[in-house]
Amino acid sequence: MINEELIRRLKAARGQFVSGEELSRVLGVSRTAIWKHVEELRQAGYRVEAVRKAGYRLVAAPDRLYPVEVQDGLKATRFGREVVYFDAIASTQIEAHRRAEAGAPEGLVVAADVQTGGRGRLGRTWHSPPDAGIWMSLVLRPEVPLARVPQLTLVAAVSLADTLAEHTGLSVGIKWPNDLFAGGRKVCGILTELAAEADRVHFVILGIGLNVNQKEEDFPPELRARAGSLAMAAGRSFSRVALTQRLLEGLETDYDTYLREGFAPFKRRWEARAISLGRRVVARTPGGEFVGVARGIDDDGALLLEQGNGTIRKIYSADLDLHA
Amino acid sequence: MINEELIRRLKAARGQFVSGEELSRVLGVSRTAIWKHVEELRQAGYRVEAVRKAGYRLVAAPDRLYPVEVQDGLKATRFGREVVYFDAIASTQIEAHRRAEAGAPEGLVVAADVQTGGRGRLGRTWHSPPDAGIWMSLVLRPEVPLARVPQLTLVAAVSLADTLAEHTGLSVGIKWPNDLFAGGRKVCGILTELAAEADRVHFVILGIGLNVNQKEEDFPPELRARAGSLAMAAGRSFSRVALTQRLLEGLETDYDTYLREGFAPFKRRWEARAISLGRRVVARTPGGEFVGVARGIDDDGALLLEQGNGTIRKIYSADLDLHA
Repeated sequence: MINEELIRRLKAARGQFVSGEELSRVLGVSRTAIWKHVEELRQAGYRVEAVRKAGYRLVAAPDRLYPVEVQDGLKATRFGREVVYFDAIASTQIEAHRRAEAGAPEGLVVAADVQTGGRGRLGRTWHSPPDAGIWMSLVLRPEVPLARVPQLTLVAAVSLADTLAEHTGLSVGIKWPNDLFAGGRKVCGILTELAAEADRVHFVILGIGLNVNQKEEDFPPELRARAGSLAMAAGRSFSRVALTQRLLEGLETDYDTYLREGFAPFKRRWEARAISLGRRVVARTPGGEFVGVARGIDDDGALLLEQGNGTIRKIYSADLDLHA
Repeated sequence: MINEELIRRLKAARGQFVSGEELSRVLGVSRTAIWKHVEELRQAGYRVEAVRKAGYRLVAAPDRLYPVEVQDGLKATRFGREVVYFDAIASTQIEAHRRAEAGAPEGLVVAADVQTGGRGRLGRTWHSPPDAGIWMSLVLRPEVPLARVPQLTLVAAVSLADTLAEHTGLSVGIKWPNDLFAGGRKVCGILTELAAEADRVHFVILGIGLNVNQKEEDFPPELRARAGSLAMAAGRSFSRVALTQRLLEGLETDYDTYLREGFAPFKRRWEARAISLGRRVVARTPGGEFVGVARGIDDDGALLLEQGNGTIRKIYSADLDLHA
């Protein structure tokens, strides 16, 4: 366990030394304990310089989604105010689900450096290697009818896409319903899961899998043609901590707007980023395959597919491919 | 644990004696083991007569939702084909949820004689005393968009109401969304819970709390004015096992019709049983109280409330009271 108060004290010194004596005094523990805590920080990836007489100096913090890192400089007021971090976990979705069941508040973030059983949409897996991505799940408790929950996925997709575009300078597109593309490859997936009664949403878990710093060879061969990372698209790496903060801030703002004003403002933003609109697509649905031109989205988040005879079919659940 | 095969053999004899020797042979256990199993049956509420030389004779089976009882004569092909029974459990909903998560098939029924923490709608409790009611949860896996799940609650309400009316001869009414009334009191509640992705329903748990044989004094004082049982309304008691079978058969038929034909046929049936239509009601919603005349239901299951100025407000989640 890292001592968060020690990190905060070292950060507050902004690269200057803080004496062991002072740290011992303000943390109320012995100087030997301070030394042990510093060792733990180093184990956790912090670079801390120790100089006799001068004390301790924070040289660099690791780019990991530790609560103390995510919260340092975070401007969101609810999203990320509570963060639970794991070096490795089966799935942040499952953990967030468990905590939401137990009463976790809206805004709780469960993050991990590695997921050993990361979940994707429709029962698929999500490749979640170490040191490379943002794998996190956000607990929401929206008071909206069940029918409006699919909109939330689209709101999240728009929000993430806008933040990513702004933060990285990349052109970010959305493939219905909620895959984000950059550099021609899928860089982010969103998994919206919920527990509800027929007339009350208990909670929504918004799962975000964002490939940040992977290189092409970090992907399994079968994903290589389709999957990419922000780093691959931009030719440079990004701080996962800073990106997470911006994403949470954007999500909080957009979520509040959605609850206040509904889906209308997001529909236009979503359509502006949609990479399939106006193009011939194949929608593989549980009820069969449909070919047509993607015309837009409906207020309930369904894709409007114009079929050969000019009729519009509403697609609720499908994998979409651009038609050859 | 009761020996279901022994019960089946005794039942097959239709009140005639079966010799210990024959039971020993067909069950492949010793006669002493047969004797022990018969003792277990008696513990479980079966009345079994044992006569030296003649053997064993089933006099009466208990009116409990044991799998072997529910399935004996059940005409449904999927609903109730697997039944899990508990003498007492916190909540059949929680257990069904757990089993559905673990992959339980559609049609699984979790039933209990007593619920110590029975759940009702909107986080309320459901009084579930012993020997009196049908407390059960049914696992469904409908391939419908999220927005259509509230319809399922209404389909269930109609189905249960029709079966109850037919089986008991009582006049059974529905108060939106899904409370069933007989004899002027609430006799049945339905709790529809679900786990889903934004574009795929993982499973729905249909919870049914049906007061069958309670007397007025069996209800806690605070419920006495509003809650009743079928027995109170009809002046006679009912077999819980037989009723459960008829309810499951009706639910299976109606569920299949719904999946095939949609909500339209049920909308009319629902409105025919609705006790609030055309009357002034108060709808207490999360967003405040609304007074108006209940005009009908929408295709998404919402109540259509005509307000003073003639506008129609759609009510998705509320408690409804007839206006004084």
